[in-house]
Amino acid sequence: MPLMKSWVASANAENHPFPLNNLPYGVFSRGDDEPRCGVAIGDMILDMAAVEEAGLVTLADVPVFDVPFWNEVMELGPRAWGELRATLTELLSEGSAKAAAVQPFLVPMGEAELHMPFLVSEYTDFYAGRQHATNVGTMFRGAENALPPNWLHIPIGYNGRASTVVVSGTPVHRPNGQTKAPDAEMPGFGPCKRLDIELEMGAVVGTSSEMGQPVSVAQAEQMIFGYVLLNDWSARDIQAWEYQPLGPFQAKAFATTISPWIVTTAALEPFRTSTPAREKPLLPYLEEPRPGLFDIKLSAAIQPEGAARATTFSNTNYSEMYYSAAQQLAHHSTSGCAMNAGDLLGSGTISGADKSSYGSLLEVTWGGKEPLTLDTGETRTFIEDGDTLTLEGHAQGDGYRIGFGPCTGKILPAVKWP
Amino acid sequence: MPLMKSWVASANAENHPFPLNNLPYGVFSRGDDEPRCGVAIGDMILDMAAVEEAGLVTLADVPVFDVPFWNEVMELGPRAWGELRATLTELLSEGSAKAAAVQPFLVPMGEAELHMPFLVSEYTDFYAGRQHATNVGTMFRGAENALPPNWLHIPIGYNGRASTVVVSGTPVHRPNGQTKAPDAEMPGFGPCKRLDIELEMGAVVGTSSEMGQPVSVAQAEQMIFGYVLLNDWSARDIQAWEYQPLGPFQAKAFATTISPWIVTTAALEPFRTSTPAREKPLLPYLEEPRPGLFDIKLSAAIQPEGAARATTFSNTNYSEMYYSAAQQLAHHSTSGCAMNAGDLLGSGTISGADKSSYGSLLEVTWGGKEPLTLDTGETRTFIEDGDTLTLEGHAQGDGYRIGFGPCTGKILPAVKWP
Repeated sequence: MPLMKSWVASANAENHPFPLNNLPYGVFSRGDDEPRCGVAIGDMILDMAAVEEAGLVTLADVPVFDVPFWNEVMELGPRAWGELRATLTELLSEGSAKAAAVQPFLVPMGEAELHMPFLVSEYTDFYAGRQHATNVGTMFRGAENALPPNWLHIPIGYNGRASTVVVSGTPVHRPNGQTKAPDAEMPGFGPCKRLDIELEMGAVVGTSSEMGQPVSVAQAEQMIFGYVLLNDWSARDIQAWEYQPLGPFQAKAFATTISPWIVTTAALEPFRTSTPAREKPLLPYLEEPRPGLFDIKLSAAIQPEGAARATTFSNTNYSEMYYSAAQQLAHHSTSGCAMNAGDLLGSGTISGADKSSYGSLLEVTWGGKEPLTLDTGETRTFIEDGDTLTLEGHAQGDGYRIGFGPCTGKILPAVKWP
Repeated sequence: MPLMKSWVASANAENHPFPLNNLPYGVFSRGDDEPRCGVAIGDMILDMAAVEEAGLVTLADVPVFDVPFWNEVMELGPRAWGELRATLTELLSEGSAKAAAVQPFLVPMGEAELHMPFLVSEYTDFYAGRQHATNVGTMFRGAENALPPNWLHIPIGYNGRASTVVVSGTPVHRPNGQTKAPDAEMPGFGPCKRLDIELEMGAVVGTSSEMGQPVSVAQAEQMIFGYVLLNDWSARDIQAWEYQPLGPFQAKAFATTISPWIVTTAALEPFRTSTPAREKPLLPYLEEPRPGLFDIKLSAAIQPEGAARATTFSNTNYSEMYYSAAQQLAHHSTSGCAMNAGDLLGSGTISGADKSSYGSLLEVTWGGKEPLTLDTGETRTFIEDGDTLTLEGHAQGDGYRIGFGPCTGKILPAVKWP
């Protein structure tokens, strides 16, 4: 598929993240206006509440865009999602008869503030990158026991904390927590000393399932509304002391940052790619009816306070995952666990085959033993106060891109204990 | 404190669970009426939406009781909670001048259907019973390594699934899942074979905290609106295969049942008791400013399909916990994790010193090796289809009880895979 041309000129610029092929969904405000739904097109945001009020888009009997979240649209289901995309494509295409009617509802992105694009119902994080699991397992348990015995059979996941999922640009305080050095007699309490990122994709569940009713991978695929970039901030020293036997808790609870635009599954269709060959056969309930991953180029960068530019320390790809989001979602429902519109599924850290493609500082610096040298000449093992971490991602089409917009966050000093 | 007498005669009956001293909060409906907030008093429910409409109780500028959840009342904060309790006590006391005005708004409990008393924002389950942790640890890792090294320092918790927290009486399908016998080459998929309960208390968080702002134990105590009984249904075979390295997931995600009435912290005040002596000193952030547990007698019973009565297999007490809900909540916020009104904190399984006080079948039958004989003569290792499991609890005062109402659920056969 080539670039689809829009009458919004900036959307046709070479490798712009938001061409007509993309049409990602976000929530924005301008000045004192209430936040509302918007669609990114080139350097502009289409004010969906205004477009709906003008009668140019009608999805339901009641307004669904004059709210600061896309959950109401999600709950209308895949048929409505398809209608909306078709209508937007028609309205914004080069030569559209309705260009003059739509034009007044475009807001320059530079004048807008972006907010969380949806209400996060619950947040689940997975552990589905094989290289990442191998790297971390090797560091913690030795090369022979790197992959847990269940890893090739189960898309391993754990429930995370929805209350601290924030939109790109939100500053994050370094967490406090309990830690213990291996040779210490007693644990201590204070600011995290090994603060890290995890480069992930987030899948946004768009429709609900009933409690007691598992869904298949094929059904799960239909339930996924779209994807965001996701930084699963991680406090490694807190994690090491707390995580056995029941998994990560406060080490991951302080913040999860997502990119501001939900890129729809529809926009990503041309980039579908299969999960890798299986070392051991999957149980039938996890079999993939069609390719479930997407070829999305991803990067992570760090910029110290005051530095002129960021240093990119990882270039990887979403196609590195061993399990797709649809497989994860189906597994999530096996027990009868009800899934809801607005559930967010973190893919797990996406690491490629070598150090330049590892998705966390823990891996890049091999547990802090091999410091990373930044473009400024400074070095880093883990994140320091004032550092800004940024994930970026896009799918590269034939003459166009499907971009996500940055997923960024600056680390502020730890707060004083109450 | 003695029994406080009410003009609602049934509330004065000996050892009634809902005397005037209690006043627990629930959500009920009658016939085709919309579910709304209600307060249990003796064998009656006070229709709070009607009482509010009649102007007998006014907590805010807008109605807060004509909704099927108590979250709006919670969010008004502890001062409003105190006002409400004082007003209700006045309205329902023996000799109240307003008895005649209130009387029309009492609904016989036998005519009402009970619903979830609040919207669960997020659900966290802890692991704070020492005997339980020791029992399970002994079974899984041997007596020498029973307690994990962090256990005496951290109120260990993990995030659970809010979407499947259901009210007492809701039937639960036996979960399907992936399991692997220790000697099997490959895992299989099918209905859970080792289905269990966990006898717990749930603390209901009533006010919110800000992201990035930890709360102290003293602050946490003020945030807890009340308590419910909680059955953390557990699929032991699924759990054993999935839980390493990131904790329980589908083994716990299919259902969590709570009792229908939120018993307020205020009603439980006379029953405060301290956490036990510390084997190792706690870090200062976890120190208890005053006794944080409550003397609440608890029991668990199982009733096979068609059996005339249930067999009680456990009698224990909430005071067996090593950590209080306030300590758990403070720990939960250490990293800066935002807590919200409606968050539910499971205490962890409450097991006493011996087998007759263990809070799960896993412990009572010691991993299924010592079957339990029921009053009917049947035996059980784990739960069979058609079995009904019931938790009960009350605090025993001087001539009165603070009861919770039963927390019950019947197990239905596993559903067929999609």
